[in-house]
Amino acid sequence: MEFLVRVDGARVYELPADESAALIERERVRGRELMAAGTIRHFWRIPGRRGNIGIWSAADADELEAALTSLPVWPYADIEVTPLARHPMTAVS
Amino acid sequence: MEFLVRVDGARVYELPADESAALIERERVRGRELMAAGTIRHFWRIPGRRGNIGIWSAADADELEAALTSLPVWPYADIEVTPLARHPMTAVS
Amino acid sequence: MEFLVRVDGARVYELPADESAALIERERVRGRELMAAGTIRHFWRIPGRRGNIGIWSAADADELEAALTSLPVWPYADIEVTPLARHPMTAVS
Amino acid sequence: MEFLVRVDGARVYELPADESAALIERERVRGRELMAAGTIRHFWRIPGRRGNIGIWSAADADELEAALTSLPVWPYADIEVTPLARHPMTAVS
Amino acid sequence: MEFLVRVDGARVYELPADESAALIERERVRGRELMAAGTIRHFWRIPGRRGNIGIWSAADADELEAALTSLPVWPYADIEVTPLARHPMTAVS
Amino acid sequence: MEFLVRVDGARVYELPADESAALIERERVRGRELMAAGTIRHFWRIPGRRGNIGIWSAADADELEAALTSLPVWPYADIEVTPLARHPMTAVS
Amino acid sequence: MEFLVRVDGARVYELPADESAALIERERVRGRELMAAGTIRHFWRIPGRRGNIGIWSAADADELEAALTSLPVWPYADIEVTPLARHPMTAVS
Amino acid sequence: MEFLVRVDGARVYELPADESAALIERERVRGRELMAAGTIRHFWRIPGRRGNIGIWSAADADELEAALTSLPVWPYADIEVTPLARHPMTAVS
Amino acid sequence: MEFLVRVDGARVYELPADESAALIERERVRGRELMAAGTIRHFWRIPGRRGNIGIWSAADADELEAALTSLPVWPYADIEVTPLARHPMTAVS
Amino acid sequence: MEFLVRVDGARVYELPADESAALIERERVRGRELMAAGTIRHFWRIPGRRGNIGIWSAADADELEAALTSLPVWPYADIEVTPLARHPMTAVS
Repeated sequence: MEFLVRVDGARVYELPADESAALIERERVRGRELMAAGTIRHFWRIPGRRGNIGIWSAADADELEAALTSLPVWPYADIEVTPLARHPMTAVS
Repeated sequence: MEFLVRVDGARVYELPADESAALIERERVRGRELMAAGTIRHFWRIPGRRGNIGIWSAADADELEAALTSLPVWPYADIEVTPLARHPMTAVS
Repeated sequence: MEFLVRVDGARVYELPADESAALIERERVRGRELMAAGTIRHFWRIPGRRGNIGIWSAADADELEAALTSLPVWPYADIEVTPLARHPMTAVS
Repeated sequence: MEFLVRVDGARVYELPADESAALIERERVRGRELMAAGTIRHFWRIPGRRGNIGIWSAADADELEAALTSLPVWPYADIEVTPLARHPMTAVS
Repeated sequence: MEFLVRVDGARVYELPADESAALIERERVRGRELMAAGTIRHFWRIPGRRGNIGIWSAADADELEAALTSLPVWPYADIEVTPLARHPMTAVS
Repeated sequence: MEFLVRVDGARVYELPADESAALIERERVRGRELMAAGTIRHFWRIPGRRGNIGIWSAADADELEAALTSLPVWPYADIEVTPLARHPMTAVS
Repeated sequence: MEFLVRVDGARVYELPADESAALIERERVRGRELMAAGTIRHFWRIPGRRGNIGIWSAADADELEAALTSLPVWPYADIEVTPLARHPMTAVS
Repeated sequence: MEFLVRVDGARVYELPADESAALIERERVRGRELMAAGTIRHFWRIPGRRGNIGIWSAADADELEAALTSLPVWPYADIEVTPLARHPMTAVS
Repeated sequence: MEFLVRVDGARVYELPADESAALIERERVRGRELMAAGTIRHFWRIPGRRGNIGIWSAADADELEAALTSLPVWPYADIEVTPLARHPMTAVS
Repeated sequence: MEFLVRVDGARVYELPADESAALIERERVRGRELMAAGTIRHFWRIPGRRGNIGIWSAADADELEAALTSLPVWPYADIEVTPLARHPMTAVS
């Protein structure tokens, strides 16, 4: 099952500079692990926004929640999740 | 997996009276089937709102979408779905 | 009478780490008491949100307010309450 | 238990003039009954708004919902309900 | 003339604990005076919200503003005022 | 007492052309009466909006409501009223 | 360049049933062409919403606009477009 | 003086097809006149939106309002105007 | 040309008490100068709001911006400006 | 390709005064470079807002994002980007 996940991490950039830099570095390490594991399938910046938007894959909401709370920025991030269903048109093809 | 599903059916009540009544009757039949099947687990009115809110159970977003599009009011309804994950506290007990 | 209660506890996670951890620990103790007492009937995480959503049971708004203000996170939480009424369909069965 | 009830009846005024007038007349009859029964305790116009705001009294959400759905304008109205709890200050006195 | 007044005092609870407690104590003293004077006519908690909602009576907006700015929490509170007009139905009776 | 009154009359312009023109003509007649009576003190267009914004004067909310419901566009208009209080600075001078 | 495109087609379902069915059929034909051309890269239903969300690829905003206005539902749809930029993390790998 | 003007013309596209086409044709004629006169300085589509956004130039709000109400789509359009001031940086150069 | 200017100065009241008092004193001095100069034409409190609303007069947006940035509270204030155009009805008389 | 870019820099003005001044000075240097490079094409203040709005030019979202993250205020700014497409009318001329 796939989810659209939008992470607003503005508060991370408002932390003291060294704390913010260390957190972002740890976030990237964890992000690469989730990409390697196939949890994060696609991943973009929205120009101008301090955060990202991506397509995540997880068995269900419990597995997704486990992945999201494993993010180092989780305590500072405002995350919105939209569940995605297969569209009849892509199901046909 | 469970979902919080809020159905705003205001437009249904704004259809011609007989069309609206027939649609609501068919909706109730389908609703009872989904309750019998365990898809709709809990189900309430929000006082004053022309619609309902409920806890639905489905294997994933595809199965939920199939259930929602089977509702006779679907073409007229504004439906909001929130995925639900097990809370650490209930997972412990 | 049942209520849908959504607790946004984002600010709790933005407190100093030890203060936040202690508060969450106390919150869990109180949460378990309210579950044991039947006040909290169902309880979930919304993936990505720093908080929870649940179905609470109370005689009326006064009793609910007493339960909510007994939560250790209350001074930091943004809580939204929606009253729930029995739906004609479930009333029938 | 008391509730703050805000009724937005703009759509009622957008019906054909005779239909609208008949509906408003029936609404007033029902309104007076609910006032006489003590269900509607206070009742105001908000200047400029096509609707009203009031303090309603009901045993619980089920009884309130029954009163609200008995309003002739119910199928056309957008109604928002806020549950009210006794304030510690008024509880003291 | 009556006004619906909603006071959001969330920030008061986010002040240092002793400062917050002292402010709330002073607020209650002033609140009782305004109730005794007939300025505050009705007064409730909205379950889960850090604040209150009430029906205030004042000759006009100037007198209401004087009462509101006399509240100790005023510098920290987000207050919304809605003017109320007599409803034709209550005017009749 | 003064009020800021914003009238959104978009729906008036969406009526059949002759009905709309007749309504606007009657509105202007009533508007001039309210200006002559000193009820409407100032009156502007907001560029691009189908409506107007003005400063109205009335003894209280009841008198304002009577003036607003006397507008021919009232059944089609979405009107927002903000009560205005004397500012300490203008009170000084 | 990629874009997140959310199509709200609720109004399509509110057209007369045959008109709506014909429009949706034409929409599917055009959708398949845009998928075959690589313009639509990914494509989902959001459970409960009468519309879809997808990842579109186009050289720039002009090319995207040409694709969007070629959709048979375009005159009835409310479409929101979010430009997407490569994320530093995916740029590295 | 310059203004950012956003025209939402969705309702134009929801008129009967011939009425809509005629209106859009007249709109384009008037639009070209306003461009030739230097009133409309820049002019874009926002991908997916049924309308446009532009930079308009006018002596003041009265002159802008005259230009906007001269648009054939004016009775159907929702127009938002933002006044623009010279930025200190461009004033320097 | 006139503008409706709404100043939300809530943050000013959240500064340390002496800093806030000094800033408000300087603001009043500057406010009186702008009133004497005819830039601020009308000026009110909105009951309960920590700020003000007024009618300002300026040749254009540049002159208004110069007046607004001259306010001592400017760095802390959230200011919304609405341009105002002469209404056909007042233009007639 | 052009973009409408709105920068809300309110937080910059809420930093300590010397930090804020230094940041704004660096921002102006970088702004002038982006104007000289043709990335920023037009640039305004919105009266009363602590920020700016402009028309930016970039090959695509990646190039725009690179320009935006090069702004010294980027970590403190809330930036909204709207992609712009050529309008059929300007394409004709």
